[in-house]
Amino acid sequence: MSSANIESQPLLPERTSLRQQRTINWSIFVPVCLGISLICVGQLVLSVVHNSLGSAETFTEPAHFLSPRPSTANCSLHWFDQRVDHFSTLNTTYAQRYYVHDAFWKRKADGHKADGPILFYCGNEGDVTLYVNNTGLMWENAEALGAALIFAEHRYFGESRPFGANQMQHLAYLTHEQALADYAVLLRAFQTSRNSSSPVIALGGSYGGMLASWFRMKYPGTITGAIAASAPILGFPKGYPEHFTGEKYWQVVTHDATPAAGAAPTCEANVRASWPLLFATAQTETGRRQLGEIFRLCRPLQTAADAETLAMGLLMAWDTMAMGNFPFPSSYLTGGAADLPAYPVRAACDVMATSTNASTLLPAMRDAANLYLNATKDVPCFAWDTQDFDGLWGYVWCSQMLPQESYFDTDGVHDMFWPRSLSFDQVAADCKARWGVSPDPDWIRTSYGDLETMLKATSNIVFSNGGYDPWRSGGVLANPWNPSIAIVDIPEGAHHLDLFFSHKDDPVSVRHARHIELDHIRQWIRTFDA
Amino acid sequence: MSSANIESQPLLPERTSLRQQRTINWSIFVPVCLGISLICVGQLVLSVVHNSLGSAETFTEPAHFLSPRPSTANCSLHWFDQRVDHFSTLNTTYAQRYYVHDAFWKRKADGHKADGPILFYCGNEGDVTLYVNNTGLMWENAEALGAALIFAEHRYFGESRPFGANQMQHLAYLTHEQALADYAVLLRAFQTSRNSSSPVIALGGSYGGMLASWFRMKYPGTITGAIAASAPILGFPKGYPEHFTGEKYWQVVTHDATPAAGAAPTCEANVRASWPLLFATAQTETGRRQLGEIFRLCRPLQTAADAETLAMGLLMAWDTMAMGNFPFPSSYLTGGAADLPAYPVRAACDVMATSTNASTLLPAMRDAANLYLNATKDVPCFAWDTQDFDGLWGYVWCSQMLPQESYFDTDGVHDMFWPRSLSFDQVAADCKARWGVSPDPDWIRTSYGDLETMLKATSNIVFSNGGYDPWRSGGVLANPWNPSIAIVDIPEGAHHLDLFFSHKDDPVSVRHARHIELDHIRQWIRTFDA
Repeated sequence: MSSANIESQPLLPERTSLRQQRTINWSIFVPVCLGISLICVGQLVLSVVHNSLGSAETFTEPAHFLSPRPSTANCSLHWFDQRVDHFSTLNTTYAQRYYVHDAFWKRKADGHKADGPILFYCGNEGDVTLYVNNTGLMWENAEALGAALIFAEHRYFGESRPFGANQMQHLAYLTHEQALADYAVLLRAFQTSRNSSSPVIALGGSYGGMLASWFRMKYPGTITGAIAASAPILGFPKGYPEHFTGEKYWQVVTHDATPAAGAAPTCEANVRASWPLLFATAQTETGRRQLGEIFRLCRPLQTAADAETLAMGLLMAWDTMAMGNFPFPSSYLTGGAADLPAYPVRAACDVMATSTNASTLLPAMRDAANLYLNATKDVPCFAWDTQDFDGLWGYVWCSQMLPQESYFDTDGVHDMFWPRSLSFDQVAADCKARWGVSPDPDWIRTSYGDLETMLKATSNIVFSNGGYDPWRSGGVLANPWNPSIAIVDIPEGAHHLDLFFSHKDDPVSVRHARHIELDHIRQWIRTFDA
Repeated sequence: MSSANIESQPLLPERTSLRQQRTINWSIFVPVCLGISLICVGQLVLSVVHNSLGSAETFTEPAHFLSPRPSTANCSLHWFDQRVDHFSTLNTTYAQRYYVHDAFWKRKADGHKADGPILFYCGNEGDVTLYVNNTGLMWENAEALGAALIFAEHRYFGESRPFGANQMQHLAYLTHEQALADYAVLLRAFQTSRNSSSPVIALGGSYGGMLASWFRMKYPGTITGAIAASAPILGFPKGYPEHFTGEKYWQVVTHDATPAAGAAPTCEANVRASWPLLFATAQTETGRRQLGEIFRLCRPLQTAADAETLAMGLLMAWDTMAMGNFPFPSSYLTGGAADLPAYPVRAACDVMATSTNASTLLPAMRDAANLYLNATKDVPCFAWDTQDFDGLWGYVWCSQMLPQESYFDTDGVHDMFWPRSLSFDQVAADCKARWGVSPDPDWIRTSYGDLETMLKATSNIVFSNGGYDPWRSGGVLANPWNPSIAIVDIPEGAHHLDLFFSHKDDPVSVRHARHIELDHIRQWIRTFDA
């Protein structure tokens, strides 16, 4: 798609505050937004699917740079009347928002039995405009593929609100199965209204990537193939212990802070040393007053135990920077509020590296974490005790997406944090208290099956994982069973970097990954059209 | 499985009254029970999948005759706590009934990675004991396969009643998706409690066959393969017109009444001639009084229009006899109350053939229909105006399973009935009036996809269809796309005859069909265990 064909529009600011959406459930300490890491090599690098494209090292396909970048302004906005419950006979409906770009859609031509493909973005737990405005992979290939683009908003997020302003009192229908059914019904209606037969490629990143792969698994008659970027479908549900790679979430975050990922040599050790110092300082009232000054806290710590809440806020800043460890400045994880620097973990590690003794360690931690916590440079003080890490996503998490036990545990040895673990029962009790739901830890595995049988029974899915992305610890990293399921590793990629617009500073591995993904999409389309 | 290994127990009487379960929605005139037909050759015979077994004509595999037949008495009875709604976060539960026979279950042995298979019956719209006591295909192969047998009851039927005695006020969760989720959860719990990994073969006939094939499509990670006997997955949802075979439902019933299906030569013409005579006679009060005497009606016809209600009852008797056109006497379609004769359509046609003039036509029709309507020989009069043809199945039908428009139409030319047609709008209005539900005619196709994409995207399913079975008109009769989907035609078979116990009078085609099905099951197990 040449930039000349896209209306000249500035990139809209993202309307979603990721700081509201993403987080950790404060008390249960689990990262809950699947949002957006840099160089993660060594033991984390698994096999890259090379196809016929040659190795990543020799791949030199030029990127497509669209300038200005297309956005919602290039789309038509639509609303679709969806049933709130697709699996009972209740007839209540709500209006689902979606965006369409079909200027390049190629309709059936002689010799083809199908129209050009539909690239369908499976909206995540956020305002859909965020995905419209950032999913460069769809925009950059629309013209060449003759594709229509559809970006569908996930129920209960953005402006797609069942029960409107009262939806927080009616959360029962916020499940991923209902969201997938929404997407299937929307697609059927779209195709029917256009009198179209076309292959549909589902795309998504993070939770959206989980949805994309599950969409192919559950609706293979509708979805021809799926690009599931940074989709931790094995990390969320309790129940895939035999496929657990051993890369725990916080170990990947830690890896990002090592020289192997381009970070300063002293970073990891300095981060690790800061927690005992913080906790020790918090033991006395004098110490807590010192911490209040160092970290510029809005309210002082009351007890020694409060130090862990403060530490959690700092840890989450490292988490966000790891997910967002992109090679260019990006506001994706700040809801458009302000850019994080390029490779933010490296930048934070540069700050940590300035500390050479205990007296400067905590101020360095403050400044490193503030790359995210005060990215806007206008936050007067750190409200350590009022952060909400997950918002509505916590409900989805608690009702269906619970992690494996120990998935988010830290030990301070294999990771640079402090020892902390939570049992399933603790997590479940917290979910019950916060949301009133009792998670079924077996449901996801019951619905999709064991890994081997699941992958053998489906086809046409690309699972991509970034080497810098902590969510890779829950991703599908190996597939010895089914050649139609591709595993694409992006050693220098953070959270679904491959879905973003091409950038001059992109590492070769992500450019290669996009090429592989496009190659698979073309193959699926050819097979559909055969 | 040798009979010596089965406890000696009499076959329990079926506890379900099929006369209550099955029928036509009285006003919308659609056969709604998928229950149980004999020789249907000529244009109805499609290709048989022969595998390596040779042709049907030369196949001489001996049947396994179990005597006495195993039944619920050979099973353990269990109850499982199921969520009423698997797709929302509501936590209400109900107790689901299921039966297990595991005496022959072969647990993991050296050199095998899996246990013996689970043969899982997907309970239909009836008391599960009916299926336990009649699904001979499972019983006869349990020992040779080293298989465990599970028969699961469908929610809202039999004794598996959400909301107990009040369930008629809470029908919203009576959907096939919820039933499939019940089955998946039950299987997961069964396997977990037995610490088992095993291939699972889903089996079912009629609506249960639809469930079996859909179970494989939606839960391929759990279900290794499916035997979908007489499963009209293309006839129910509106929306597969391009795959409609042209064999309308009542044309198959008519075919059963022709010499090509072993019936008396004058039968079809006599049946066809009886309706105009009936309607003409009903035009006058004298005529209606005559009809009351001839048909031994409990209450007289009040108006000429009442004649169609009477005619519907007669037509439904022909329908039931066509579904139940088995080669041996069977009480399957009378809920165990009394046997229909072997090949009941032939028997009814023999009655019709005795009529040689108008004065004997209607009495012959009465006696033919009474083979079913008064199978017990103790019905004092025909309650033409109070028959309930579908019961709770009508709700399932109205909410999700609507037929293609014209599927159940008759014209009196290509079939032996009288011209009658219903638009989708008429059916929908009736559903709304009776059950308060507004069917979505597109949902099934949205959920499972177009036929070609649906069949291409799944695997390991055998679709069997009986040549005498009117439901074949909605069955999958051809598959040029996917070699792992087998189509088995049983020219001399009625409604899911292949699932029943072997019988000495079984035609070779059904014995052949069972052999093909077993061959596929063995292949699926081998692949799972590889």
